[in-house]
Amino acid sequence: MADIRKLDANTADFQARLDELLAWDNVSNTAVNDTVNDIIRRIRREGDAALLEFTSRFDAWQAQSAADLEIPRQRLEQAWNAIPGEQQQALEHAADRVRAYAGHQKVQSWEYEEADGTLLGQQVTPLDRVGLYVPGGKAAYPSSVLMNAIPAKVAGVAELIMVVPTPGGEVNELVFAAAHVSGVDRVFAVGGAQAVAALAYGTETVPPVDKVVGPGNIYVATAKRAVFGQVGIDMVAGPSEILIICDGRTNPQWVAMDLFSQAEHDEDAQSILLCPDGDFIDRVEAAIEELLPDMERREIIATALKERGALIRVSDLDEAAMIANYIAPEHLELSVEEPREYAKKIRHAGAIFMGRYTSEPLGDYCAGPNHVLPTSRTARFSSPLGVYDFQKRSSLIMVSEEGADTLGRTASTLARGEGLTAHARSAEYRLKP
Amino acid sequence: MADIRKLDANTADFQARLDELLAWDNVSNTAVNDTVNDIIRRIRREGDAALLEFTSRFDAWQAQSAADLEIPRQRLEQAWNAIPGEQQQALEHAADRVRAYAGHQKVQSWEYEEADGTLLGQQVTPLDRVGLYVPGGKAAYPSSVLMNAIPAKVAGVAELIMVVPTPGGEVNELVFAAAHVSGVDRVFAVGGAQAVAALAYGTETVPPVDKVVGPGNIYVATAKRAVFGQVGIDMVAGPSEILIICDGRTNPQWVAMDLFSQAEHDEDAQSILLCPDGDFIDRVEAAIEELLPDMERREIIATALKERGALIRVSDLDEAAMIANYIAPEHLELSVEEPREYAKKIRHAGAIFMGRYTSEPLGDYCAGPNHVLPTSRTARFSSPLGVYDFQKRSSLIMVSEEGADTLGRTASTLARGEGLTAHARSAEYRLKP
Repeated sequence: MADIRKLDANTADFQARLDELLAWDNVSNTAVNDTVNDIIRRIRREGDAALLEFTSRFDAWQAQSAADLEIPRQRLEQAWNAIPGEQQQALEHAADRVRAYAGHQKVQSWEYEEADGTLLGQQVTPLDRVGLYVPGGKAAYPSSVLMNAIPAKVAGVAELIMVVPTPGGEVNELVFAAAHVSGVDRVFAVGGAQAVAALAYGTETVPPVDKVVGPGNIYVATAKRAVFGQVGIDMVAGPSEILIICDGRTNPQWVAMDLFSQAEHDEDAQSILLCPDGDFIDRVEAAIEELLPDMERREIIATALKERGALIRVSDLDEAAMIANYIAPEHLELSVEEPREYAKKIRHAGAIFMGRYTSEPLGDYCAGPNHVLPTSRTARFSSPLGVYDFQKRSSLIMVSEEGADTLGRTASTLARGEGLTAHARSAEYRLKP
Repeated sequence: MADIRKLDANTADFQARLDELLAWDNVSNTAVNDTVNDIIRRIRREGDAALLEFTSRFDAWQAQSAADLEIPRQRLEQAWNAIPGEQQQALEHAADRVRAYAGHQKVQSWEYEEADGTLLGQQVTPLDRVGLYVPGGKAAYPSSVLMNAIPAKVAGVAELIMVVPTPGGEVNELVFAAAHVSGVDRVFAVGGAQAVAALAYGTETVPPVDKVVGPGNIYVATAKRAVFGQVGIDMVAGPSEILIICDGRTNPQWVAMDLFSQAEHDEDAQSILLCPDGDFIDRVEAAIEELLPDMERREIIATALKERGALIRVSDLDEAAMIANYIAPEHLELSVEEPREYAKKIRHAGAIFMGRYTSEPLGDYCAGPNHVLPTSRTARFSSPLGVYDFQKRSSLIMVSEEGADTLGRTASTLARGEGLTAHARSAEYRLKP
């Protein structure tokens, strides 16, 4: 039979085995940290000169000058014009849907006035300038460009700067086409920790941004952690995950293929099924066995299922929901009869795919919601990437003379309670005589 | 004259001098990092035993057992009943206003249905459990308890756990009273990196939380950075800042006292005035000179003004707005004639205090908006602490059979473009025959 562990939620050691299964440490080792800190230091001190040197060393190509690191926008348009019509239509279809959904997420300013004329509110503004990291090579996904770039543009970010390494001068035409359709403003052919540092601190050629988003390898992730505070960053993502809750009445091949669709990302990806029906679990296992040999990425899938996958039998769907809330999965498929009703039991998940027809890959590409989602149980406290990640709020306070009197008395009492008398006296100056 | 630097925005070296003035590095040194990492490792491995040991070592008191680390809720009520009526009223007034403002911030779930019956949306849920760090000793501010606890409770957080060190067994009655009025659920008398680690990973006695918020010293801040990912954290704050833009027609004593009110926080606090009127700047300087000797915290204020303060002459208020957007201050006072009109020019600030009567300390205590605000130019990309920090979103997707066909074709094309054929086949299973 297929090489994937089978667990039963009603055994004494289940919680321990589940924790073992979920364990993931996103830790950078000291060598990586040292390398990254050195790269950041040199970019801050030497700017373009260091950026050119690192690009030559790590990406194996030599730009004539720093200006040559920029890829002109016409090059993106050229890539767009060169791809097949079917891909153009698919990218446009996806971009339109991501844009439409993002429009619903936009946070609006608000204010209210109190009886004494005091005004309170919240002013919402977009970030000025955002950097988007796009990996080079095999992990370069055009869909990821759409998912990161479009919410930023919907938020009103004035300048969106993409960085993408071009190892040996090699470019990914689909990534360029996606950048074109997403409205990316400028592109630089740099990558790694040096690209993150250039975005965070700026060089003579690369302008400093206010936030850096997008996926990358361990050097990129470590650099993002290091520059956090100087600029904003998005979440540092762990391996991709899917949790499927099935009542046992979906085609087992569909379920097997949905498990594969996460497992094919990489060997660390996690695919888990929760089901109350033992026979159905056996049929999914058989489908895995049957379908796996035909898959293009069967070796990656087999490793991921063996190392981090599980078929888990539960007592009932209530227990499945409880376990799902503990796992707080990145992707949660509810392959059950009344998915909308059942979804009310779910408190923690990045994205919830309801019903047997809602396969997870639709969410990766074109359903509309973002595919950048919290992994490794972080859906307990964080959210999908969205327009709100490219907006920020300023509190608005305008007190009337009357309000300065009422509020000033309370502020004065509390400030004196804390021993902060300049605070108190500042408020007291504005009291009525 | 008062010892505070005076700058002119129209000198050649102004930008360099401004950058020098704003420079702030929030870096933990290696010794602190090593200590903190060791504490976290021991709390993870040994739980309560390590927590008791560190509390004895760092806070100089010995709990009989781990259960004694918990402070019963009745103890909070007792503190509340013991404080003067004036302080009770002030705390209640502040709590009510913070709660009312927070109510406006709550993010709501939404969804929409497309023509083919496909449903998309966003489900918003509160965090299950949150930890609130409260410093012991002189930096323990009851107002900080209100500002961190109330938004969490308004968001619907089921369990709010406060940790506060009690060095030598000493407690702050006003902090306990504030915890009572804010609805804190449980309190543990622990502090430092060990408290942060206990909240992040849980011990036999302290339950693990989903997010840790609240201010603390360098060990606390370093521990928060280290556990980020395991749990959510709020911003790691730098020193407090105020930027006042004045047209030269406010009482110079008011302006001086508002500058003092930040400066008295600590020697690193930053107070800056931008004004187009050189004579007015001289009058503010004279007021500083005159008022300073009477201030209880005059030594802290004098150091802060000397080291990090500035009175800056600008050409006009437009230039002042431009500089304010560069600084992205934590607190921005607009002491000008038409503050609401003028506020439209401000893109980056934590909180904007409009008009001559709106002194910054009102915002610290009771105006309603949160006093936990982005510092060190981070208002370029981040927001005041709010209800939204205790809520998270899950994307909702339920495609109809029709939608699975339309979307499946696009997903299949894009997945094959990325070489992810399990993704493609998962979508293709749901196409119409």
